[in-house]
Amino acid sequence: MTDHESLADPAQNSSLTDAKLSPSLTSHSNQTYKVIFQPSGQSGNVPEGTTLLEAARHLGVGIEAICGGHETCNKCTVRVEEGKFPKHNIHSIASHLTPMSSREQRFQQKQNSPTDSRFSCSARVIGDILVTVPEESQAQKQVVLKAASGRTIETDPIIRLYYLELDPPEQGGAGDWERALAELEERFGLDKVEFDYAALKELSDTLRHSDGAITLTVWDDRLVTRVQAGYQEQPIGLAVDVGSTTLAGYLCDLRTGELLATASAMNPQVTYGDDIMSRISYANEHKSGRERLHRAIIRALNKLAEDAVEQAVLSIRDIVDMTIVGNSVMHHLILNLNPKPLGEAPFVPIVESPVDIRAADLRIKLHPGARLHILPLEAGFVGADNVAVILSEQPHCQEENMLIIDVGTNGELLLGNRDRLLCTSSPTGPALEGAQITHGMRAAQGAIERVRIEPGTLDVRFKVIGHDHWNNELAPDTVQARGICGSGIIEAVAEMFAAGILQKNGRFAKTLDSHRYIREENVDAFVLAEAEQTAGGSPIIVSQQDVRAIQLAKAALYVGAQLLMRELEIEHIDHIVLAGAFGSVIDPQYAMMLGMIPDCELERVHSAGNAAGDGARIALLNKKQRAEAARVARWVEHVDQPMEDDFQSFFMAALSLPHSSHPFPHIESILDARRRNKTT
Amino acid sequence: MTDHESLADPAQNSSLTDAKLSPSLTSHSNQTYKVIFQPSGQSGNVPEGTTLLEAARHLGVGIEAICGGHETCNKCTVRVEEGKFPKHNIHSIASHLTPMSSREQRFQQKQNSPTDSRFSCSARVIGDILVTVPEESQAQKQVVLKAASGRTIETDPIIRLYYLELDPPEQGGAGDWERALAELEERFGLDKVEFDYAALKELSDTLRHSDGAITLTVWDDRLVTRVQAGYQEQPIGLAVDVGSTTLAGYLCDLRTGELLATASAMNPQVTYGDDIMSRISYANEHKSGRERLHRAIIRALNKLAEDAVEQAVLSIRDIVDMTIVGNSVMHHLILNLNPKPLGEAPFVPIVESPVDIRAADLRIKLHPGARLHILPLEAGFVGADNVAVILSEQPHCQEENMLIIDVGTNGELLLGNRDRLLCTSSPTGPALEGAQITHGMRAAQGAIERVRIEPGTLDVRFKVIGHDHWNNELAPDTVQARGICGSGIIEAVAEMFAAGILQKNGRFAKTLDSHRYIREENVDAFVLAEAEQTAGGSPIIVSQQDVRAIQLAKAALYVGAQLLMRELEIEHIDHIVLAGAFGSVIDPQYAMMLGMIPDCELERVHSAGNAAGDGARIALLNKKQRAEAARVARWVEHVDQPMEDDFQSFFMAALSLPHSSHPFPHIESILDARRRNKTT
Repeated sequence: MTDHESLADPAQNSSLTDAKLSPSLTSHSNQTYKVIFQPSGQSGNVPEGTTLLEAARHLGVGIEAICGGHETCNKCTVRVEEGKFPKHNIHSIASHLTPMSSREQRFQQKQNSPTDSRFSCSARVIGDILVTVPEESQAQKQVVLKAASGRTIETDPIIRLYYLELDPPEQGGAGDWERALAELEERFGLDKVEFDYAALKELSDTLRHSDGAITLTVWDDRLVTRVQAGYQEQPIGLAVDVGSTTLAGYLCDLRTGELLATASAMNPQVTYGDDIMSRISYANEHKSGRERLHRAIIRALNKLAEDAVEQAVLSIRDIVDMTIVGNSVMHHLILNLNPKPLGEAPFVPIVESPVDIRAADLRIKLHPGARLHILPLEAGFVGADNVAVILSEQPHCQEENMLIIDVGTNGELLLGNRDRLLCTSSPTGPALEGAQITHGMRAAQGAIERVRIEPGTLDVRFKVIGHDHWNNELAPDTVQARGICGSGIIEAVAEMFAAGILQKNGRFAKTLDSHRYIREENVDAFVLAEAEQTAGGSPIIVSQQDVRAIQLAKAALYVGAQLLMRELEIEHIDHIVLAGAFGSVIDPQYAMMLGMIPDCELERVHSAGNAAGDGARIALLNKKQRAEAARVARWVEHVDQPMEDDFQSFFMAALSLPHSSHPFPHIESILDARRRNKTT
Repeated sequence: MTDHESLADPAQNSSLTDAKLSPSLTSHSNQTYKVIFQPSGQSGNVPEGTTLLEAARHLGVGIEAICGGHETCNKCTVRVEEGKFPKHNIHSIASHLTPMSSREQRFQQKQNSPTDSRFSCSARVIGDILVTVPEESQAQKQVVLKAASGRTIETDPIIRLYYLELDPPEQGGAGDWERALAELEERFGLDKVEFDYAALKELSDTLRHSDGAITLTVWDDRLVTRVQAGYQEQPIGLAVDVGSTTLAGYLCDLRTGELLATASAMNPQVTYGDDIMSRISYANEHKSGRERLHRAIIRALNKLAEDAVEQAVLSIRDIVDMTIVGNSVMHHLILNLNPKPLGEAPFVPIVESPVDIRAADLRIKLHPGARLHILPLEAGFVGADNVAVILSEQPHCQEENMLIIDVGTNGELLLGNRDRLLCTSSPTGPALEGAQITHGMRAAQGAIERVRIEPGTLDVRFKVIGHDHWNNELAPDTVQARGICGSGIIEAVAEMFAAGILQKNGRFAKTLDSHRYIREENVDAFVLAEAEQTAGGSPIIVSQQDVRAIQLAKAALYVGAQLLMRELEIEHIDHIVLAGAFGSVIDPQYAMMLGMIPDCELERVHSAGNAAGDGARIALLNKKQRAEAARVARWVEHVDQPMEDDFQSFFMAALSLPHSSHPFPHIESILDARRRNKTT
């Protein structure tokens, strides 16, 4: 102990510290000491003179360190504890580590750090020690994925930054790149690293102007993709969910996991066709059709990236990594691959594995060395967006059975648990998004999004996007309704059924006596908003065809779910998740009232918001989740919709509100309550 | 034996063949047989039913096979021999292999193959067998590098073609890319193969239109760079030597090694500066100077590639691999890296390792997936062209000491053998290429390239490029000399010295009495071509300044060689090689007469032509030579030209014709002979 106590004298110590400086564990003295890391509890013996950072790496404890011992990044700070060791005063604890350099002292003072804070890269072990790695110093950080649910994910990005300080070049010495490589190996243990040409070009213009201080952006610890002057600590990534109709982008700090900006845009391909089948047709039937669709989506991705960095006051060149999810057709069109095989038997994609390329290969204009990871497809029908939903909702990690319904222009369903997970896709058509409905419109200003109909009086209340109040709380001429969006049409049909306006088969009740019931050109209809409440000055109605379109769509989803339940041989679903932009606005009880989803306890039906987008973000922030996605994509079993006659009759029965021959105890209780009480 | 003889019945046999079909060696019967491959003599025991191709791979015998057993490529044919086995008749030998399929029979008949020819991919071992692998079936082929010397190299390209026949896609089955990958592993044993995006895009448009028959171009057995429909067998590569002044390109069939076309072009960077130092200045002192130099050389490389494929009646997209060699400055400008560090102490390059990128990264327009390999630099001064010279002349493989002088705009010298190899560069300036000489010109139509001066009479004979005869065999007014090229000025100065016109110190003799001796503006000069023999109508002369320029250049080379000899502690050089375009036109005896090279037996001084270009071709055709180049580049020792005073005086002494204080027994004997006899 006397040996160590003498180290409290900084003058003596610095020579010892220098003498012990060594890049590896092997060359220290024979004396070893026990080091324990909290909160993980990992521990082991390390040779005297080992830095705490080296000890952590050796024991598998992830401590963040961009500068690798240059005392620059201030990311590897740990707290020295007493823990289970014999009680010491601070002085004697500190003497189990070499004292601070003057640089560390300045740093810690400037930061007002507690006296027990140390840089793990410079504090060397000279006695048994217990340290705590605070959350901000842990290499893998917990980041809140969904503020509402408090759901967190762990960051473990494929992109890491490494700060180097290279000695000046020497005559006859190695080239710039070779010196950077040697330092990367010596200081961080990275060998077999290659460079992207973009990074080599940057090195050429950076190193000689930055006194040898550079930060390398390294992908997968094996490819240098960017070189920046000086110390840098914010690698930026962009996760994008490319839907047939909309794009959603998430700009993230890859180190902290922080969400810096969100951006969304219309998919410009809608000009060439509403749904994926019409996009496939366009690609094949028009000269350069595929190229046109490809360029349109790439332009939109570039615009989205620009919007996002503008919000975060960054440059497009700061984005060094990107993940994309999307359905199979979006996937193929983004890659400029022929989508035709996706639209015809045997529905086999060109590539289903994850695709790792340079974003610039697709003319996506981020940093020129930026990487792009496109998540794997499950099958010709079931795309990378569905894989992303799995990453987000994790049915494959749970014991309970979970049904996930991702409603976009196409409906995709997943059912299962950690033992077996099935997927199928359902041709819902666009009705659930408000398209192909008499007064349908997208969920924009003026759209009726909520509907309540009083049983008996058939009085209607509705809520219009843009107003905080229901229409009956507004002066009629200020309501200015323009149409009905997806959630509005679903609530309208469900309420019309609950109020007895519609029969179980979807037809208008024969005995209807209300001024709101109209019949035009032999078609029954119900007036939702009267002329004075609309922007157009004519009533907004729900027609018999509109009801039919909703019936077809909901039947498709319902039948898909039944198909998976039959295949899995289960009769009860523990948990239902409504995903997709649509899932986040639909009220689960109306989905159940319509018989769109199987019966389930209402409190076990949740909306997951844009789960595909969340999955894209998870893949962006965690490389192990990319591997997991690749594994799960091959593990999920795809169930084809059967073509037999009995299936057709099953589908016909599913058109009923709700299914004609299935017991729906939870739905019945909802309906009963509705019939007894006033609407809330 | 009776068992095997029964196999002569084709009907019985086919079922046996089918039953034995297996992709690996492990699943055959327990019975093993001995297989010997000639000419290598490699032998071993293999299980019954193994194909000869599998046996060859197992024993490390390289047999070419593009189709991997599809009986399509006809590349793996071997001859069945008796060898050291008991004498059999043909019938019984054949019965040691399964009989031909009908497809192989048709093929062999169509080719008029000898009766003992078999496809090694389909003939399966059912008895002890000795086979010869003819040269055309060997995976590594001998190809003649230099017609003149008969020098051959072995092909072992980094690019290989693999022919696949994929089964049609099946519902729920794997994607196109995944099926191709599985087939590549099953049939050729290639795992961990990735694709370049360019190849993925081609797969999208190819596979479904070619009934599943595709040929993959694979780089380094790990990256698919091209996908073509059907069976293909000619991968094309381009090797380019980028000199400061000229570019030389070699278009090759990578499989056979055949040289399909050669192309050459001026380096358009000459517009921005004659030598490398002036290019560095231009790059740094002009706005976008570096970008301009980079674009100029890339344009020239694209043009060169186009010229080459046009000659060979191919498309630019057929080129799938490229190698480039060049000096350090060309290397950096091709890569668009800052060349400034190359021109100032400590002369450290941005990157010295070999660079492997996509050609398209530099906007070189070959196949979009084409690879580019740029050979390593030796040092800031000594470039990839010098490494290529080593690959070509192989001093590092020999016991004898070899001095290689590569004279371009810069002179580079190598000296050593397999134990130690030194290099240095000498600032020769452009005089040896005919630049900065009073009537100097490039080696083009009208240039005086050969000179003879009769001692005593001082009569001059010369030879002009474009004429087959010496000038004295032509009518004077048809000679039309326009200037003097590099070899011409060297011969002129050497002959002037041998004839006594010049003194040992390079000055004109005081006692000169000839109408060819003139003195203009106080400068001595000698008339080489009289006015009537020139295109310009005025005499072509060699001035005192011209002699001085040649003296400086030759002294630089001589001193460089002496420096290396001193460092290596040798006094005699076994073998001198003159490389570079210049080396191929200079007459070694004149180089010796001038004292440009150390004394050596004349018959041991050789011209190697464009050795750098040959080295680029070797690296193109043989991947192991690329690794060898990387190794040698780091192994060669670079010797700096010393700056001390005693070195300056050494340089002054080297200006003499030849060196004032060195014994030159071989040169003396040449000079004696010249003084005694007439010129030849």
